[in-house]
Amino acid sequence: MESKEFIDREIDAIMQKAWGAFRIYSKYTHKEKKAFLYAIADELENSGDELIKTCMAETNLPEARLKNEKGRTIFQLRSYADHCENGTWLDARIDTAISDRVPPKPDIRKMNVPLGPVVVFGPSNFPFAYSTAGGDTASALAAGCPVVVKAHSGHLKTSEMVSDIIKKAAGRMKMPEGIFSHVYFPSHYVGEALVKHPYTKAVGFTGSVEVGTLLLKWGNECKDPIPVFAEMGSVNPVFLMPGKIKESAVETAKMYAASITLGVGQFCTNPGIIIGTEGRDLDIFLSSLGEEIRKIAPAKMLHKKIAASFTNLLERILLEKGVSVLAVSEMEKCDICGIPTIATVSSEEFLKNPKLHEEIFGPYSLVVQCKSVDEYSLIARYMEGQLTCTMMATADDMKMHGDLIEDIKLLCGRFIVNGVPTGVEVCLSMQHGGPFPATTDGRFSSVGGDAIKRFVRPLAFQNWPDEMLPDELKNENPLNIYRTINNALTRDKV
Amino acid sequence: MESKEFIDREIDAIMQKAWGAFRIYSKYTHKEKKAFLYAIADELENSGDELIKTCMAETNLPEARLKNEKGRTIFQLRSYADHCENGTWLDARIDTAISDRVPPKPDIRKMNVPLGPVVVFGPSNFPFAYSTAGGDTASALAAGCPVVVKAHSGHLKTSEMVSDIIKKAAGRMKMPEGIFSHVYFPSHYVGEALVKHPYTKAVGFTGSVEVGTLLLKWGNECKDPIPVFAEMGSVNPVFLMPGKIKESAVETAKMYAASITLGVGQFCTNPGIIIGTEGRDLDIFLSSLGEEIRKIAPAKMLHKKIAASFTNLLERILLEKGVSVLAVSEMEKCDICGIPTIATVSSEEFLKNPKLHEEIFGPYSLVVQCKSVDEYSLIARYMEGQLTCTMMATADDMKMHGDLIEDIKLLCGRFIVNGVPTGVEVCLSMQHGGPFPATTDGRFSSVGGDAIKRFVRPLAFQNWPDEMLPDELKNENPLNIYRTINNALTRDKV
Repeated sequence: MESKEFIDREIDAIMQKAWGAFRIYSKYTHKEKKAFLYAIADELENSGDELIKTCMAETNLPEARLKNEKGRTIFQLRSYADHCENGTWLDARIDTAISDRVPPKPDIRKMNVPLGPVVVFGPSNFPFAYSTAGGDTASALAAGCPVVVKAHSGHLKTSEMVSDIIKKAAGRMKMPEGIFSHVYFPSHYVGEALVKHPYTKAVGFTGSVEVGTLLLKWGNECKDPIPVFAEMGSVNPVFLMPGKIKESAVETAKMYAASITLGVGQFCTNPGIIIGTEGRDLDIFLSSLGEEIRKIAPAKMLHKKIAASFTNLLERILLEKGVSVLAVSEMEKCDICGIPTIATVSSEEFLKNPKLHEEIFGPYSLVVQCKSVDEYSLIARYMEGQLTCTMMATADDMKMHGDLIEDIKLLCGRFIVNGVPTGVEVCLSMQHGGPFPATTDGRFSSVGGDAIKRFVRPLAFQNWPDEMLPDELKNENPLNIYRTINNALTRDKV
Repeated sequence: MESKEFIDREIDAIMQKAWGAFRIYSKYTHKEKKAFLYAIADELENSGDELIKTCMAETNLPEARLKNEKGRTIFQLRSYADHCENGTWLDARIDTAISDRVPPKPDIRKMNVPLGPVVVFGPSNFPFAYSTAGGDTASALAAGCPVVVKAHSGHLKTSEMVSDIIKKAAGRMKMPEGIFSHVYFPSHYVGEALVKHPYTKAVGFTGSVEVGTLLLKWGNECKDPIPVFAEMGSVNPVFLMPGKIKESAVETAKMYAASITLGVGQFCTNPGIIIGTEGRDLDIFLSSLGEEIRKIAPAKMLHKKIAASFTNLLERILLEKGVSVLAVSEMEKCDICGIPTIATVSSEEFLKNPKLHEEIFGPYSLVVQCKSVDEYSLIARYMEGQLTCTMMATADDMKMHGDLIEDIKLLCGRFIVNGVPTGVEVCLSMQHGGPFPATTDGRFSSVGGDAIKRFVRPLAFQNWPDEMLPDELKNENPLNIYRTINNALTRDKV
């Protein structure tokens, strides 16, 4: 293990370079930043089979899934590049002078500017889309911030290969040295040194509540506290409303059996809690869900540790008072596998036992059986912040339960009706970020074009000569972006 | 002094009411919220002389200033109400479904929703504009959040009278009970109990670094950490560029003598540090500044404590190595007065002594004399985050010092050219918030329509039936607001 002094020195050298790059890169035009992101996307698209093979070996994820995830990563890079150029994230505001007012009103103009170097910690479960060239990296680069990625120990070789791809693109596009760095040292202290370096201006993280809250603590301990955007997962409660479940218990059960086991349940949007009302319709749902789950084959999880953790947590949760197993996969087991499992518990026991609310990362869901739908609000109010909540409901269900809908809104960042929470669309309207502890800051999204907004702050220019203003704020509007001029949104010149 | 248990009980009762009000108020239309803010503004406008007289007695501020500040407060209430209605702060986004994509793309829509009850701590120096019915209260109410104000001990009676005005407006507009509460208890623990109550969802504060960082610490200690927006002041460095000072040393000196002593220097935007280059032009500036300052009469500060603190800090700072007095007011002294004072120091001593960078709240400025303009960047890089920075510069000065301009941009939230930092315009382009420790979160502004954004978070609606969506996101766009539909900003229907 390296000494703290050695690590401090190495990290300082990396952050000095990142800061140097920031001073140059923050002045690049949006077109130039877009071209860089497209270059990374192109290099990634043209990368050979070796990358996918390496990643398969490191993560146990199947080829089709990884190819898909690589495609998503390429799409993200291009999508955030497009947003970078069209200026959605700039929030340009102009108020023109009124010289004959008493006192005279000055000319003031405001836009978002990049924060500075961003340190990214990726998760184990998305070796491409939320790792080295993933959403955090893409949105930070789009904002004008250099990126330092700490490689995830679960896919070091993949991370290094992707890092090489980014560096190749950076070289080709003549980016400043330090625009992207990749840190390998497998030491816990490296994370702390990275977060607390004075040139680190923000942190992006996807992973566990334990690590996320530690990063948040480090961020708050900085001499100048920095924002830490940690996406820490969720149990994504699903509320089965009586009308809907009467209509389509079997269809819903099939849909959820697939969602619960998608990617061996290794998604932060995995539906971990399903809330239903006792009775004939729920019985049909449960019986159908059980039938489906028994037919779904266990599959390899990302790592031995993750599989062991899933098995241990599951064993323990099934021993909790009132919890009983509904169904377990009856298909062939394999080494380091996640075995699809559904358990049930009464709402009474659920409300008494906070352990039952915790995320179990893997293909598992707990069905909470209520005496009546009136208990749903109690449950919603009792739960912690969530990335998503879902309501399976007819129009009448929704109309009859307006208060419950309001309770659920308070609980989550994304509220789905008649769908599944897995599958996080990359688009501007996506909100991937919910109240704590789903994320450290539910005011921001780590997916979609608005992810760029995590890495900027507003800067106002008062009484500047037009020629010295950034292009975004010049009278002529040379970038042809939307700006709010004297309270009216427009693409007009001043 | 009340016991902690008593305070906890009282605060809990207040926050329970605020939460109850939130559940109702968050569903009000923007028109209704606007009408409420206008009603407060109207009541304040119609309030009698008694309010101004009470405030004069409590704060030593002169009548004209307080009438002006009351006017500003009324303007803020109406301005944020208008922004509330026009939806600048909603960031509505719509991505429509593509059902024949593989996999199908769902319909997703997103908008900002209110966080919940906001606790406001006002400052001593703005008994109206940043206190009980001030900017934090107005922007929180505009966002849809109930407000709990902890009265400032420096103007308790004024605060109570303004609270009554708000309550009268709330009654007239039939607002839910708990929409606004006013807390008097003069206990330190009250602040902590308010911040840490689980129904408190954000904090607005204006005041000292000491109290602001304490509130931030409490906010981070909450079970679910909450945002704390503390505006903690600044020394607002002014960079005198050679070309400009050659052109207009005397004019600049006069302008700054007025700015330094405005409101007895009791503004967070008071120019506390002026950076110049030794030579004949700076000598003219200094001589003229000294002449002006000697003629400006000392005036009563807000409170005995503030005056004593100013005198003590000033005495101490003038004993620091290399600091010499340039000028002190020669006009008649008075009790609890702030005496206008200018000191000078060499850049060499300034860069060695962090004490010289600290804010001294009152009519005082320190002129830092550099050997050449090349030292300005050193100074800019050495200083802490600022609300504002100012450059007195000709067009040529700006063109010749692009790197310095970039250094200054990194330092502040608002960058003024050829003006003074005092006078914070209430408009959408205003950024009143700079890097730490000027504020706890330089990504937000406490002045202007964007102040509303401090108290909201995005919520995404996936696959919702149109009739159940909030009006902001319905196909028909009944509120006629701007929305970004499939990446294009528009007021069109879907």
